[in-house]
Amino acid sequence: MSAQIEDPLTEHELSTEPVFDGKLLKVKRDQVRLPDGKQSMREYVRHPGAVAIVAVMADGRLVFERQFRYPLRRSFLEVPAGKIDPGEPILACAQRELREETGFQAAEWLHLGQIHPCIGYSDERIEVFFATGLTEVGNALDEGEFLEVLSLSPAEARAGVLEGRITDAKTIAALYLAEPHLR
Amino acid sequence: MSAQIEDPLTEHELSTEPVFDGKLLKVKRDQVRLPDGKQSMREYVRHPGAVAIVAVMADGRLVFERQFRYPLRRSFLEVPAGKIDPGEPILACAQRELREETGFQAAEWLHLGQIHPCIGYSDERIEVFFATGLTEVGNALDEGEFLEVLSLSPAEARAGVLEGRITDAKTIAALYLAEPHLR
Repeated sequence: MSAQIEDPLTEHELSTEPVFDGKLLKVKRDQVRLPDGKQSMREYVRHPGAVAIVAVMADGRLVFERQFRYPLRRSFLEVPAGKIDPGEPILACAQRELREETGFQAAEWLHLGQIHPCIGYSDERIEVFFATGLTEVGNALDEGEFLEVLSLSPAEARAGVLEGRITDAKTIAALYLAEPHLR
Repeated sequence: MSAQIEDPLTEHELSTEPVFDGKLLKVKRDQVRLPDGKQSMREYVRHPGAVAIVAVMADGRLVFERQFRYPLRRSFLEVPAGKIDPGEPILACAQRELREETGFQAAEWLHLGQIHPCIGYSDERIEVFFATGLTEVGNALDEGEFLEVLSLSPAEARAGVLEGRITDAKTIAALYLAEPHLR
């Protein structure tokens, strides 16, 4: 018999209930038992997960989007990204989002890893992909989706992060994971 | 007279209402006018903002925490971070959080920039600081807060990101911003 050693920081669920069921956001509230035996409450967003793609064009430039993000009332420079549909394999999702949002298809795909954008109050995970061998096939934005497609050289993207023009954390984390693969 | 040119991607608020007012999370729902004149709806979390600190010890190692994050039901390796209190200056917040969570005080502080962890559904911003000249003064965790303090060399932190042991996006973005200052 093997003894399973539990992480001493573990918080145990005592009960769970949906407390907000919006059109876009779902919030749950759980009662938990803390490591010291006391009880506390956790509220968090339930998210279906997402993908983000660092896509490299033939000339070495990276595909970026400029998109208005209403919660912060301004537009952001971001790598292509989007939510995973129910049951959708993550690679299929990445291929669909890249094509829909930017009009590019990629010949080679590499899964760089998983990141967690908001561990304090959301269960969202983002699967990060690296795409090369791009060909343009035309985009098809969802109804009500508006964005501009542009490109940055890896050096421009690095400078954009360090000089505060790129502040979206998923984009910065995706660039970090892609760095060993960039020229 | 100067003409102000508006970002063509701008979405305009038509109305706003609080739709969930939890103990930890607040959610708003706004009706917006899209760039094409149509209407849509946006739901998003209102957040007070936060700080994150890349703190370098005398031997060059970085201060990390291991903390259980209930939404994802596991612990994460993170840089010290925490929410901004109402009216609190961001540097004072960073100094308070570093001391409370890790027991370290820092002699030199540098503001590295601002990141946005969750632009799709939260207005949270995180102010990233770089702290050096550390001395140990003892920590004072909040009631119900449990975490382990540890240290990683910059090389261990980089490998931790690339090999998937560090997946918290604010931590990865903070390391990216700190990179030019690390040995």
